[in-house]
Amino acid sequence: MPSTNARPPAGPERPLDEDLIDDLVAANRTLARLNVLDAFGHVSLRDPRNPHRYLIARSVAPESVTAADILALDLDSQIVDPCDDGKLLYRERFIHGEIYKARPDVNAVVHSHSPTVVPFTVTRARLRPLLHNAGFLGLGVPLFEIRKSAGEGTDLMILTPALGADLAQKLGKDAAVVLMRGHGDSVVGPSLPNAVFRAYYTEINARQQLAAHTIGGPINFMTRAEALTSNQAMLSASARPWALWRKRALAER
Amino acid sequence: MPSTNARPPAGPERPLDEDLIDDLVAANRTLARLNVLDAFGHVSLRDPRNPHRYLIARSVAPESVTAADILALDLDSQIVDPCDDGKLLYRERFIHGEIYKARPDVNAVVHSHSPTVVPFTVTRARLRPLLHNAGFLGLGVPLFEIRKSAGEGTDLMILTPALGADLAQKLGKDAAVVLMRGHGDSVVGPSLPNAVFRAYYTEINARQQLAAHTIGGPINFMTRAEALTSNQAMLSASARPWALWRKRALAER
Amino acid sequence: MPSTNARPPAGPERPLDEDLIDDLVAANRTLARLNVLDAFGHVSLRDPRNPHRYLIARSVAPESVTAADILALDLDSQIVDPCDDGKLLYRERFIHGEIYKARPDVNAVVHSHSPTVVPFTVTRARLRPLLHNAGFLGLGVPLFEIRKSAGEGTDLMILTPALGADLAQKLGKDAAVVLMRGHGDSVVGPSLPNAVFRAYYTEINARQQLAAHTIGGPINFMTRAEALTSNQAMLSASARPWALWRKRALAER
Amino acid sequence: MPSTNARPPAGPERPLDEDLIDDLVAANRTLARLNVLDAFGHVSLRDPRNPHRYLIARSVAPESVTAADILALDLDSQIVDPCDDGKLLYRERFIHGEIYKARPDVNAVVHSHSPTVVPFTVTRARLRPLLHNAGFLGLGVPLFEIRKSAGEGTDLMILTPALGADLAQKLGKDAAVVLMRGHGDSVVGPSLPNAVFRAYYTEINARQQLAAHTIGGPINFMTRAEALTSNQAMLSASARPWALWRKRALAER
Repeated sequence: MPSTNARPPAGPERPLDEDLIDDLVAANRTLARLNVLDAFGHVSLRDPRNPHRYLIARSVAPESVTAADILALDLDSQIVDPCDDGKLLYRERFIHGEIYKARPDVNAVVHSHSPTVVPFTVTRARLRPLLHNAGFLGLGVPLFEIRKSAGEGTDLMILTPALGADLAQKLGKDAAVVLMRGHGDSVVGPSLPNAVFRAYYTEINARQQLAAHTIGGPINFMTRAEALTSNQAMLSASARPWALWRKRALAER
Repeated sequence: MPSTNARPPAGPERPLDEDLIDDLVAANRTLARLNVLDAFGHVSLRDPRNPHRYLIARSVAPESVTAADILALDLDSQIVDPCDDGKLLYRERFIHGEIYKARPDVNAVVHSHSPTVVPFTVTRARLRPLLHNAGFLGLGVPLFEIRKSAGEGTDLMILTPALGADLAQKLGKDAAVVLMRGHGDSVVGPSLPNAVFRAYYTEINARQQLAAHTIGGPINFMTRAEALTSNQAMLSASARPWALWRKRALAER
Repeated sequence: MPSTNARPPAGPERPLDEDLIDDLVAANRTLARLNVLDAFGHVSLRDPRNPHRYLIARSVAPESVTAADILALDLDSQIVDPCDDGKLLYRERFIHGEIYKARPDVNAVVHSHSPTVVPFTVTRARLRPLLHNAGFLGLGVPLFEIRKSAGEGTDLMILTPALGADLAQKLGKDAAVVLMRGHGDSVVGPSLPNAVFRAYYTEINARQQLAAHTIGGPINFMTRAEALTSNQAMLSASARPWALWRKRALAER
Repeated sequence: MPSTNARPPAGPERPLDEDLIDDLVAANRTLARLNVLDAFGHVSLRDPRNPHRYLIARSVAPESVTAADILALDLDSQIVDPCDDGKLLYRERFIHGEIYKARPDVNAVVHSHSPTVVPFTVTRARLRPLLHNAGFLGLGVPLFEIRKSAGEGTDLMILTPALGADLAQKLGKDAAVVLMRGHGDSVVGPSLPNAVFRAYYTEINARQQLAAHTIGGPINFMTRAEALTSNQAMLSASARPWALWRKRALAER
């Protein structure tokens, strides 16, 4: 867990590890191929050199992100390197910056319009874990209703630091996922592979819960203890799919 | 918005910009790849040189459209250039011509058998916006019932100028989408990227609304103000997916 | 419509047109790519040289059929050319032979486990046309219950001429599709492109009817007159998708 | 049926047939391509040289398994060849070893998170055969509830020999499939092609049963006699899809 108090020392900065940039490129492309991200959505990584910054692509569709698109923002979601001035940024980047401020345990954030998650943001049924890989949903799945923050006439997007902070507050101290009404979700994790894993299995659990509603009758969800145990196990088990996904994404570059 | 009164000056005509032809080719192929268009359906663009004409492919399946297939029709959907005489035209091209007559604000039209939209044309549930990208559905989603225009024994197709005019009238002055019972929809926009974006997100919203009906309970649709704000935002935001889609479609040519 | 009375003259036989063989190869591969056929199922064509014979692949999965796999059977579904002796034949080939005997208007047959059609063979809801392209369903969609012919202990397959004849009788004189309980369907047409078109749109109509049941409320099916008019229109309109499908299938050979 | 009592003679061992290794590689890749296996899950084969051993990949995602990943384990799921020491093994390999111990008739096992099967593990509706290819479901589809073996706080995984033995006991002497609550299923067969076939058609039958529940009304499932007859027929009929799947999987290597 990075400290959020210590400022990094001044002076020339280490260049970013190329593997790390590749990780972020692979995460974008993987979630696009898995149909969690469409032409919108974004993935970020807290800068391991400086916990007060995060890495994210400039405003391009996730499936076309390359290493050259990655830039660093501070936690107010402003450009750090003057060389990046003038680059078009994601309008909703405040989702990332404000979550990193509020959650020092979080090192990666995925914001998506996860297609089967959206219906669970506009109905009363709660998204809950039924598949063991989705145990992290047992940490809570709060729903952010933008009308409470910004009234009934927005475009539902997180366009200001203040809205980002409200979203981060709704996410709270424990949850891995916050639903965004009529919009999608934001998923966080202690590492990039884990955040990608969670974003994918949030969508899969939603599909399977939808099917369970179709079949009908009470759904036998995971107990809270099962969810917590499973979440813990998946922190390391997410390495296996990540190895596959990363390799495949970078081979298709 | 092109004027519909001023006739263009006579005289030799500027050739069409190649990029524009590529736009129309890319729009056809993109909507086929996104499964909005199947082997049927068509996309058109109002001719920027002359608002009394529009550009559309000759009668070929959308995914196989090439630059050589594009031709110009007048707003009565008749061939303009004698060189095109004898080419097979889409039988339902009147959808396009009559909408361009009735809606000077419209510069692009997509007609499709959008697969998840069709069920909403034969049931009582109204298709309404629940996903922010589909805010344009808040402009109204009228349903065209061909039985009212042409009786109970048609093949449901828009084969005459009169049926095209009835469809355009049902679309009305504001809506972006008109449903066609047992058939599909026609989607319009101020620009080609926006019409493609709207055709895609009409299908996506239909899928998510179908899932919401499966989950059950009241659906928390967008308010009218949210829909209008979102629609406005998406007029420019549709540039990002379009850049991706166009590049990909033309690379696969 | 071929005569079923006149026997062809004896003597050396014209070789089959290569384009026709390619048609049959393309039909197999297309319906596999469109997910109507899986590793099972088969497509046949009445031999244009001799209406008392039909062409079909030896027993291979549809997506891997090549020209070398095509052979001729008589209407008792027996090998005609001694060179073909010993080739493994589809066990359910009697579906084809018996339908050709009973329906002189039929020149092509598709038997498939069409995935969304199967659920309509085991529930009480009738599959009915709601999409204009599926107007042919208005000719009737009888359900073949093998228990009535062969008792409660079969493997549901059409393994004898007698079962094929019962299936053909259930299809009747008019229908384009006969459902087979717990198994799939058999679809017929006056031409191969039309039979392929009908097999595909039977599956599509089933998907859309399934969605309409999910949405709920009465479904506004096509009237009988609409269905008949549409069916007539599609006899020629099926040429457009066929041109695309055939080209694509043969290019991927 | 291999004997489970006779230990193989000591001495130098025959090398494994390369075709057999390819079979196992193909089985992994095929079930990944058919979306039965995702980045998790595993396939094993009883060692034909020694019924007290089985062959399985080291811990890698199924779609990336190669011949070099295959190793032999004994029925306690321990490494046999010291050269394999240190290789990372599937944590849930006890599923395989314990089933081979309990079921001498079984020569192949597939464990998966089959996506449409999972919902049937958390609802009251029983998965039952409605599609003739899935007749083997008529042998029974028991549900393993890990809470009964290991309490309410596990991660739902089969991480010990004892849990593997409980699962094997729930599978019983006859069934081809055992459901695992909130997790997936394990499917067995007398041969690898048959186990792959059954794993695939378990998923397909689940999809079609889900659709039948959507349509509503009583579902006309197969009778027990039909299921048994069909299962018997498919023991050999599974050769056709297997030939296709194997060839395709190895070509894509």
